[in-house]
Amino acid sequence: MGTVPLLGDEEAAPEARAVFDDLRAKRQTDYVNNFWRALAHDPAQLREVWDRAQAVMGPGALDPLVKELVYVAVSTVNGCAYCVHSHTAAARSKGMTPEMHAELLRVIALAMQTNALATALGVEVDERFRA
Amino acid sequence: MGTVPLLGDEEAAPEARAVFDDLRAKRQTDYVNNFWRALAHDPAQLREVWDRAQAVMGPGALDPLVKELVYVAVSTVNGCAYCVHSHTAAARSKGMTPEMHAELLRVIALAMQTNALATALGVEVDERFRA
Amino acid sequence: MGTVPLLGDEEAAPEARAVFDDLRAKRQTDYVNNFWRALAHDPAQLREVWDRAQAVMGPGALDPLVKELVYVAVSTVNGCAYCVHSHTAAARSKGMTPEMHAELLRVIALAMQTNALATALGVEVDERFRA
Amino acid sequence: MGTVPLLGDEEAAPEARAVFDDLRAKRQTDYVNNFWRALAHDPAQLREVWDRAQAVMGPGALDPLVKELVYVAVSTVNGCAYCVHSHTAAARSKGMTPEMHAELLRVIALAMQTNALATALGVEVDERFRA
Amino acid sequence: MGTVPLLGDEEAAPEARAVFDDLRAKRQTDYVNNFWRALAHDPAQLREVWDRAQAVMGPGALDPLVKELVYVAVSTVNGCAYCVHSHTAAARSKGMTPEMHAELLRVIALAMQTNALATALGVEVDERFRA
Amino acid sequence: MGTVPLLGDEEAAPEARAVFDDLRAKRQTDYVNNFWRALAHDPAQLREVWDRAQAVMGPGALDPLVKELVYVAVSTVNGCAYCVHSHTAAARSKGMTPEMHAELLRVIALAMQTNALATALGVEVDERFRA
Repeated sequence: MGTVPLLGDEEAAPEARAVFDDLRAKRQTDYVNNFWRALAHDPAQLREVWDRAQAVMGPGALDPLVKELVYVAVSTVNGCAYCVHSHTAAARSKGMTPEMHAELLRVIALAMQTNALATALGVEVDERFRA
Repeated sequence: MGTVPLLGDEEAAPEARAVFDDLRAKRQTDYVNNFWRALAHDPAQLREVWDRAQAVMGPGALDPLVKELVYVAVSTVNGCAYCVHSHTAAARSKGMTPEMHAELLRVIALAMQTNALATALGVEVDERFRA
Repeated sequence: MGTVPLLGDEEAAPEARAVFDDLRAKRQTDYVNNFWRALAHDPAQLREVWDRAQAVMGPGALDPLVKELVYVAVSTVNGCAYCVHSHTAAARSKGMTPEMHAELLRVIALAMQTNALATALGVEVDERFRA
Repeated sequence: MGTVPLLGDEEAAPEARAVFDDLRAKRQTDYVNNFWRALAHDPAQLREVWDRAQAVMGPGALDPLVKELVYVAVSTVNGCAYCVHSHTAAARSKGMTPEMHAELLRVIALAMQTNALATALGVEVDERFRA
Repeated sequence: MGTVPLLGDEEAAPEARAVFDDLRAKRQTDYVNNFWRALAHDPAQLREVWDRAQAVMGPGALDPLVKELVYVAVSTVNGCAYCVHSHTAAARSKGMTPEMHAELLRVIALAMQTNALATALGVEVDERFRA
Repeated sequence: MGTVPLLGDEEAAPEARAVFDDLRAKRQTDYVNNFWRALAHDPAQLREVWDRAQAVMGPGALDPLVKELVYVAVSTVNGCAYCVHSHTAAARSKGMTPEMHAELLRVIALAMQTNALATALGVEVDERFRA
């Protein structure tokens, strides 16, 4: 697979290489995921996504683990196998237990089911749900 | 809108009416959402979804509020306006603050963005993400 | 709603008007759906879709009603409210009973649920399912 | 691929193993699909999905083969490769001929095409399609 | 509709109001779309999206009109009625003729059709398409 | 992968073989993609898709390269890996530079992000965007 080659450290432009280095330092690992190596063809986009990912996924009003669960949910509905795998791994590294994973899947599966029912029934939004 | 008429209390079959009553008692409100009134054409399915919704969305390894956030995420990607509205309301009733709502939207939006990038780049799943 | 105005009979080009007439004759009704009136801005596309719809949705190896059920399923997953409404009506006119409608929704809902589970679990296709 | 390891018979909990046995008996095969082996990490969810799948997909107001065709349609729109493969196989085992498969694909493809047109044109639902 | 109220100029925070003013100046209109008024509940996100939208949608290797066409395509597949309407309007303001609109819809519709066929057939990516 | 076997030249029916020959002549290559070999099980559908693809994707009010960019956008949102790969290759063969590819991805990613925001916020279509 791949519509662009994955860029190794030597092939990446200095600006992309700088993101790789930043990512390695922040994540305390030498490993750089395929996603970043593919995105490195556009160093500015790579930088923008990496910076925003850190800002959005860090602590805030929502817990970082909760954010990963939401990420897995979005990725599942979009059918993005890469994203499902990488964010399930990220969720685990942030404390997701097998029980939490199982429950997450139950919620996603229920939501998929009721989303389809609401759509197929053409249910009108209740007045009280409108802001 | 609506591919089936919404059933009022008198029009619903006794089995459906029993679910309405159960829902009213559990939620401590007299109001029955359009979704349940549309689903009432199939009382068995109504019962099954209502029972499972309670089991899945109640407390467990994940907090009920977290589950609502995941529900909103799934509903957003599916483009189900009804579900987005009803579960945003549910999340609020379970404690979602405006700050949490804003952060939820940021996570969903980031995930949508990176999902598209991973798919358009055809990124292969890293060996280390496979279980 | 509408990104283009719906074309009345007098506003439509002769080629589009010819499709309207054909549609009226074949469906034995004077009513022309909004979809065709919107599509009439591109008479060639209107003709092509109308001709193919008749060819594809008519009798063949699958029953016309079965085809409408599949159409409703696709439209539901795509979240196309227009299509869900028009093809649920079409299915009814071809014999879909309330019981069949209820069962159709159960199948769609189950498929949505298991699709999400298979994707979130990243299940590899079994060798025996490959042709 | 896989966000969880597939569970072999010996690794599965007794409740999951019981579902495997039930599945083997009902389907008259020794083979247990990857989907069930992945889902076995949550024996309760495994049991619930398996029981409901049997109830929903069995004979009723709709023919079991028709239900499989709908399943393939939903799985196609969701882009779930696993589900497309497993339910295409299931449809074949229930009598889907190559001609029926070809027609199914034509209907799905037509529905995808018109769904997009209706959405891009922003067509309003006709009053007569509302229940 | 709406899961949050649209913020008028007086209700918006100063940071959000500043974006409204910037938008008015850049677009040379007094009108601020509902999208920005809804997003104004999170002034930082509002600023980030507005700034990035200008950077991404302006002239570059691709023409601004081409970018709007791509935007309409994405919005159509996502079933986002708001986005389809606003970006169809934007495309028109950047020079999209009725002929171009009609052709755009033909391409989207063809792509939807073949996407479904490729997925339902489970077609493996050709070696020569991999980077 | 594959729910049907890919048909070699000798296995394909004469009508399908004729499409292969036409494709070879028009594209000036001996190579026939997997997509066409899978679709060849239904020679009439193969012919219809091939003919329409040529008509739709050729020069017109929109440039052929612009059409390929739109195709990649649709395929990305649909999560169709095959289509993303084949149409990214097609776009390259029609002149897409790495800079154009990078920009295309930025537009798609921005559209995905704002689509989700508009849907999650339940933003009503502005009166002025309605035709």
